[in-house]
Amino acid sequence: MTSSDHHKEAIQGLIQTGKYFFDRGWSLGTSSNYSVVLTHTPLTLLITGSGKDKGRLTDNDFVTINEHGQTIAPPGAKSSAETFLHIAGARAPLQTAGLAYTGTTQAPVGAILHTHSVWGAVLSDHFFETGYVPIQGFEMAKGLAGISTHTDLYKIPIFDNTQDIPKLASQVASRYSDPNIPVRHGYLIRGHGLYTWGKNLEEARRHVEIFEYLLEVTGRVLSLKGRLS
Amino acid sequence: MTSSDHHKEAIQGLIQTGKYFFDRGWSLGTSSNYSVVLTHTPLTLLITGSGKDKGRLTDNDFVTINEHGQTIAPPGAKSSAETFLHIAGARAPLQTAGLAYTGTTQAPVGAILHTHSVWGAVLSDHFFETGYVPIQGFEMAKGLAGISTHTDLYKIPIFDNTQDIPKLASQVASRYSDPNIPVRHGYLIRGHGLYTWGKNLEEARRHVEIFEYLLEVTGRVLSLKGRLS
Amino acid sequence: MTSSDHHKEAIQGLIQTGKYFFDRGWSLGTSSNYSVVLTHTPLTLLITGSGKDKGRLTDNDFVTINEHGQTIAPPGAKSSAETFLHIAGARAPLQTAGLAYTGTTQAPVGAILHTHSVWGAVLSDHFFETGYVPIQGFEMAKGLAGISTHTDLYKIPIFDNTQDIPKLASQVASRYSDPNIPVRHGYLIRGHGLYTWGKNLEEARRHVEIFEYLLEVTGRVLSLKGRLS
Amino acid sequence: MTSSDHHKEAIQGLIQTGKYFFDRGWSLGTSSNYSVVLTHTPLTLLITGSGKDKGRLTDNDFVTINEHGQTIAPPGAKSSAETFLHIAGARAPLQTAGLAYTGTTQAPVGAILHTHSVWGAVLSDHFFETGYVPIQGFEMAKGLAGISTHTDLYKIPIFDNTQDIPKLASQVASRYSDPNIPVRHGYLIRGHGLYTWGKNLEEARRHVEIFEYLLEVTGRVLSLKGRLS
Repeated sequence: MTSSDHHKEAIQGLIQTGKYFFDRGWSLGTSSNYSVVLTHTPLTLLITGSGKDKGRLTDNDFVTINEHGQTIAPPGAKSSAETFLHIAGARAPLQTAGLAYTGTTQAPVGAILHTHSVWGAVLSDHFFETGYVPIQGFEMAKGLAGISTHTDLYKIPIFDNTQDIPKLASQVASRYSDPNIPVRHGYLIRGHGLYTWGKNLEEARRHVEIFEYLLEVTGRVLSLKGRLS
Repeated sequence: MTSSDHHKEAIQGLIQTGKYFFDRGWSLGTSSNYSVVLTHTPLTLLITGSGKDKGRLTDNDFVTINEHGQTIAPPGAKSSAETFLHIAGARAPLQTAGLAYTGTTQAPVGAILHTHSVWGAVLSDHFFETGYVPIQGFEMAKGLAGISTHTDLYKIPIFDNTQDIPKLASQVASRYSDPNIPVRHGYLIRGHGLYTWGKNLEEARRHVEIFEYLLEVTGRVLSLKGRLS
Repeated sequence: MTSSDHHKEAIQGLIQTGKYFFDRGWSLGTSSNYSVVLTHTPLTLLITGSGKDKGRLTDNDFVTINEHGQTIAPPGAKSSAETFLHIAGARAPLQTAGLAYTGTTQAPVGAILHTHSVWGAVLSDHFFETGYVPIQGFEMAKGLAGISTHTDLYKIPIFDNTQDIPKLASQVASRYSDPNIPVRHGYLIRGHGLYTWGKNLEEARRHVEIFEYLLEVTGRVLSLKGRLS
Repeated sequence: MTSSDHHKEAIQGLIQTGKYFFDRGWSLGTSSNYSVVLTHTPLTLLITGSGKDKGRLTDNDFVTINEHGQTIAPPGAKSSAETFLHIAGARAPLQTAGLAYTGTTQAPVGAILHTHSVWGAVLSDHFFETGYVPIQGFEMAKGLAGISTHTDLYKIPIFDNTQDIPKLASQVASRYSDPNIPVRHGYLIRGHGLYTWGKNLEEARRHVEIFEYLLEVTGRVLSLKGRLS
């Protein structure tokens, strides 16, 4: 595939992803942003422009940025305020076959997706002091790349919300190999939403679906118990 | 754009908005009404006619009214009983860039949307005595024009429900610069629904999505806690 | 309109209604049945055949019956087991302009709709001993024909579920002018679903939407309180 | 119908089923798998391939397997890890007209469907110690083939989740005539999902809808009570 084809495919893939996530209610109110890695060396990303309606993205709603978050094209276009979190996601160790991705020559992250679901906001706020949303005993966790059993405790890390995005991006990156609450397939920002990624757009979409399902299951279990706080 | 083009665009925009809100369940049972400002001086509005199915609006389901709520066209057409709340909304101070709109020469309100969601009815009833639904700590609030942080307490004002619409419209207008619970981007009517607006239809739609998301988040947090009353 | 046109329009209207209700989750699993009055004197109804998938109705999935519930056409076709509840609904006093319909020469019932929603099943079971689901303070109740205020207590009657449909039809009919819990725009059957009607299919559909909205509001208020039983 | 026609129809039916279940949120994240019986003697099944997005199945996403779970076609294709549960389902005694299917010459199982809904995960976990999800008093249970009354207690069996699928398949098969908690129309796997079947794809789909409805009703009743645990 030529780089021009890859660029076109990325745009069509993200337009379709936006419509899909919007319909599910995960990207309302011009929230969320999505990106696809165009080149790995040097790192360039195609990312949704700032403030676009994700249910009605068009070919003109995307920006190409470099590894410093600077706009490459189109001239003067403004990327999302959260560009640095996409760059951090693009550099995350990819989880494959149960092993953390450890090099730069194997299949790296190909797409990064950020969503704003209701359950993500509710549970990232509720479990903030714990530091993570605990997931255990649910088969669907096996839909996360490299997870092969439902029995282990999986921790979805939660970071505090902030308007200082570069600082948050730095905090996220420092947790990729954390022994206690590592950032593996994604993380939540408190009262805000989810970041996740995958080797390509398809895998990243699957991770969004898996996380959203697991969050809803967790929320409904707590709701049935009637004792959140 | 000629005034005829603007008129046609307003109709198509509201038809599409109706179908969208109906599909989300925010405008069932012929509830809700929507309007677009056609001219600011004198004020004229294109508004949905009374009792129309919002999921299946047609070109003939709209009425043009003047600033007194009187029908301009088509002859004999009946506008919604809540016309006066749309006129009040059209005169609301527009929130931009963190500053209340203070004049009449800058971009004023361009569209007013009224919806009847389940969460809006439930929470406007629950928080009625408090006077507002409290929103704090959720990133999505930044989708309201001019809000730049999630940390401040945002109050969605609640007014008592009534069949005396002109009186309610007057109460709403008197609260635009209220020091305690100001009407900023919209308000709830108890057990009834939401009014919001924006500089154009697109922004007003975004505000509906933001408010509905924030209401659902609030409702689910309370539901998890199992102790609403 | 010729009777043939009316017949065709009724079929198309019910096919579209089935798809719509199925999409909302109100008619899953081949549940529910719908009818339109073809002639008032003598009473004949077009009704959905037994056991049809409501999301995929076709022109051949309907039966014409007479006032005794007998099949007129097509020969040998089997109507729903609940045919007698549709006949009873067709004879209900129509609520118009705040007054009960009292004669047979004014616009009578034109369509009867039966649905199986989750909230209808949950609340008809919960409030069974009370005899009705209480609705008060919600604007949307004004979407029921002839209701002009949200302040009155509206009672949605609940009947016990049974396999003896003719007996249940007789019980329903005896409650049309009941002083305590009258059957007005419809009723619930315990753990089963909703029956409602209107002067035409459009009004009956609106009544389904209104009742389903009011049931969901009621269910979520109780859920928030965490003390159903 | 020729066997080639049956094969084509099965593929189209499962593609459409996948899109439908995905839209309802019952098959997110490439979860779930579906099968149709191609021949009964010897048993061959058309089954969804491993790891396919159920919302976007194509003609190439299916595998034909034999009664030992081995791939017949296409060469080298990999069927789902849960193939053995489909084979067990294909041999389940079919419930018809209130009587358990007892022979091999009457209409046997024609389709087996496995889904991963939120309510299925939540309730299979909650009721695990009980051994089944209790269903009683809800009319919709009559949508399960052969069930003619809503008054009897219906038990949806729950099995513990495991990665040892052949062993689980054996456990399921041993419960078809269990006197206490028999496997009749389907069962749940703890924290995982639902298996059900029917004489053909249409009936199996109806059973999925019925079970999902009954699970949601049960979950919402418990949620209203605010005392799951």
